[in-house]
Amino acid sequence: METYKFDKSMELFKKATTLIPSGIYGHESPAILVPGSFPYYAERGQGSHYWDIDGNEFIDYICAYGPMVLGYNHPKVEAAVSEQSKKGNCFNHPGPVMVELAEKLVNLVSGMDWSVFAKNGSDVTSWSIQVAREHTGRSKVLMVSGAYHGAHAWCTPGHAGLIAEDRSNVHLFTWNDESSFHQQIEKYRGEIAAVIMTPYHHPAFGDSIMPADGWWQTIQKTCNEEEIVLIVDDVRAGFRLDPRGSHVYFGFEPDLVCFCKAIGNTHPLSACMGKDKFKNDASKVFLTGSYWNSSVPMAAACAVLDVMAEENSVKIMMDMGEKLMKGLEDLAKTHGLQVKISGPYSIPFMRFANEDNFLRNQLFCAEVTKRGSFFHPHHNWFLSSAHTEDDINKTLEHADAAYKIVKDEFGS
Amino acid sequence: METYKFDKSMELFKKATTLIPSGIYGHESPAILVPGSFPYYAERGQGSHYWDIDGNEFIDYICAYGPMVLGYNHPKVEAAVSEQSKKGNCFNHPGPVMVELAEKLVNLVSGMDWSVFAKNGSDVTSWSIQVAREHTGRSKVLMVSGAYHGAHAWCTPGHAGLIAEDRSNVHLFTWNDESSFHQQIEKYRGEIAAVIMTPYHHPAFGDSIMPADGWWQTIQKTCNEEEIVLIVDDVRAGFRLDPRGSHVYFGFEPDLVCFCKAIGNTHPLSACMGKDKFKNDASKVFLTGSYWNSSVPMAAACAVLDVMAEENSVKIMMDMGEKLMKGLEDLAKTHGLQVKISGPYSIPFMRFANEDNFLRNQLFCAEVTKRGSFFHPHHNWFLSSAHTEDDINKTLEHADAAYKIVKDEFGS
Repeated sequence: METYKFDKSMELFKKATTLIPSGIYGHESPAILVPGSFPYYAERGQGSHYWDIDGNEFIDYICAYGPMVLGYNHPKVEAAVSEQSKKGNCFNHPGPVMVELAEKLVNLVSGMDWSVFAKNGSDVTSWSIQVAREHTGRSKVLMVSGAYHGAHAWCTPGHAGLIAEDRSNVHLFTWNDESSFHQQIEKYRGEIAAVIMTPYHHPAFGDSIMPADGWWQTIQKTCNEEEIVLIVDDVRAGFRLDPRGSHVYFGFEPDLVCFCKAIGNTHPLSACMGKDKFKNDASKVFLTGSYWNSSVPMAAACAVLDVMAEENSVKIMMDMGEKLMKGLEDLAKTHGLQVKISGPYSIPFMRFANEDNFLRNQLFCAEVTKRGSFFHPHHNWFLSSAHTEDDINKTLEHADAAYKIVKDEFGS
Repeated sequence: METYKFDKSMELFKKATTLIPSGIYGHESPAILVPGSFPYYAERGQGSHYWDIDGNEFIDYICAYGPMVLGYNHPKVEAAVSEQSKKGNCFNHPGPVMVELAEKLVNLVSGMDWSVFAKNGSDVTSWSIQVAREHTGRSKVLMVSGAYHGAHAWCTPGHAGLIAEDRSNVHLFTWNDESSFHQQIEKYRGEIAAVIMTPYHHPAFGDSIMPADGWWQTIQKTCNEEEIVLIVDDVRAGFRLDPRGSHVYFGFEPDLVCFCKAIGNTHPLSACMGKDKFKNDASKVFLTGSYWNSSVPMAAACAVLDVMAEENSVKIMMDMGEKLMKGLEDLAKTHGLQVKISGPYSIPFMRFANEDNFLRNQLFCAEVTKRGSFFHPHHNWFLSSAHTEDDINKTLEHADAAYKIVKDEFGS
């Protein structure tokens, strides 16, 4: 079969580099993808599919890096967006939909009594730490080494433009390593305001790692004993494991939970929810942005939550993800290749088990993408509830051809 | 005349406080407005007018605190939004409109060679400081006391949840005070990465203060000599003084300029632009957010810039603002009241000259608002190009009635 060309993407990217530093920056940067084998610019989307500016069609397993959860251009979400847009988006005051959304979330998300809204995941992870500092009167924060909590100076994975003070109160421990965690707890006893963690560990350039037995119970028990605020960064996993919060999926009770991405099905919104005991502190920590009270993304989020409840989106994503990942695993075996599957089925990742350098995975994902299924070689994938069995079957065909090329190139 | 009631706003706000810390937070917080005299929730908008959930209609002189610049529901902007929305908003890649917008901005904004995009003003003011730190290898930042650069920890006007390290490298000087500026320059010589300033001083709870003669020349000359990066935070004033950047209006040349608010006419977008010499540094400082490459607000911004060029929006805003402020000044005299007008006519402010406590201004703005023109007693106002002479005339009628009440209450 003829594989895709990306001439228009490459051409526009070349122009972009004259106008924009790096041309495309951040998590969508093509610097980490194989040049000439991936699209750089999106034209339009529908359901689980999108088209790039060369006219290539892709079944999308990255889902805008998470924000697409029910499918692009979802009829019920876009109807709510359109209705609210006619009224307006950003005013001198919030719209009534802000209260409606807060009520829906408080009723839905387990153990959380209130909600605030912002635009970026970073807005709420950073704010939640300020709330914890206000509540405890302490300065220090513990986070997992390699975890992503956003692009603010205290947590960015970047290295440029930082100063020592940005992180002098942020201390690291190792995921699933109780002694590493307790070591930091003991070292900074009485100084720790917050422990911030994702519900499971999903680093870039690595396997996703689920919590070990007892891990969350240890974290929660220690935080309670030491009066440390336990913050869950559910930005990436939120609404893909359990609509009541990923802490329900893993069976623990955080103090504050941060959401973003899936909450608005591509419409820009983030939220921080918390327990009543932090509400007074939350009201004291200044929280604002020019568009944070905008009604359109909140109307989208209300529709998203309704659709998720109606169709049981999490089950669909889990089922489709399971079919995909088991299919990829089985196919790899038939080619004599070894793959390592990790993460929940709704947010899975795959790499080749016999390499650390991702070279097989880069070739594999490039060849799958060039045939019409967008896979990322270094970042976890996402399913949506718009993915169908037909999508998965087509993708497994693309994977079959790509595995053959990997086998031919690498031998095993 | 019957004045407005805000029963539904008050009722919904009461419910909101059970679900959201403070009910409404940040710059839209009603805590600083007169209870019962202002709307708390917006229902819809059209042109220079909006309606609250009680059905009250307002001529809007706050303009969503800046983001509304051409009028709510502007036909050309919303047509661009609708067309892009059908294709989609947030994908695995930017849309081609990102390059189109960057090109428009680079062609329009004076002295700037590249652009990046984000969501909040704070996103770009904070990032620009990282770029300056990367460029200079220095840590310290000078800013004007009382200036607003966003809600990140280094600059928030809030006090809760902060730690000493958030601001240990941020040092203050006084607007229009050359000796205060030079004192800090000398104290931290060789350590200062950036000076960040708004194009004129627009503090809350105070008069707007234009730059004194030679002020910007002093700032620019010193920054050049000391190899300090001069950052202009044009978030609030941008596109309301000169479409080429407010630095053109005041006649100086910054290194980096931050935009937000007016750029998208209520659609969420911010931008940082810079000179070529910082492009390499900019490409190194990690910059990302879940929705930062979204196409809908960029399509809106392209349309906004086109409309601004077609209709000369700045002139309209300046003319309408002049008519409003001169009218308010004249009317005050006829009532025997003393008012102080400040700021550019497109972003004006008014207070009573014979008080420091804003009590007259609170009563005046409440009474104007209750008659159908939204005025804020403590925050600068905004004009849009949708404001008409008829709007201004109606507002002056509202002001006439309100001045009478102030005179009756305060005597002078």
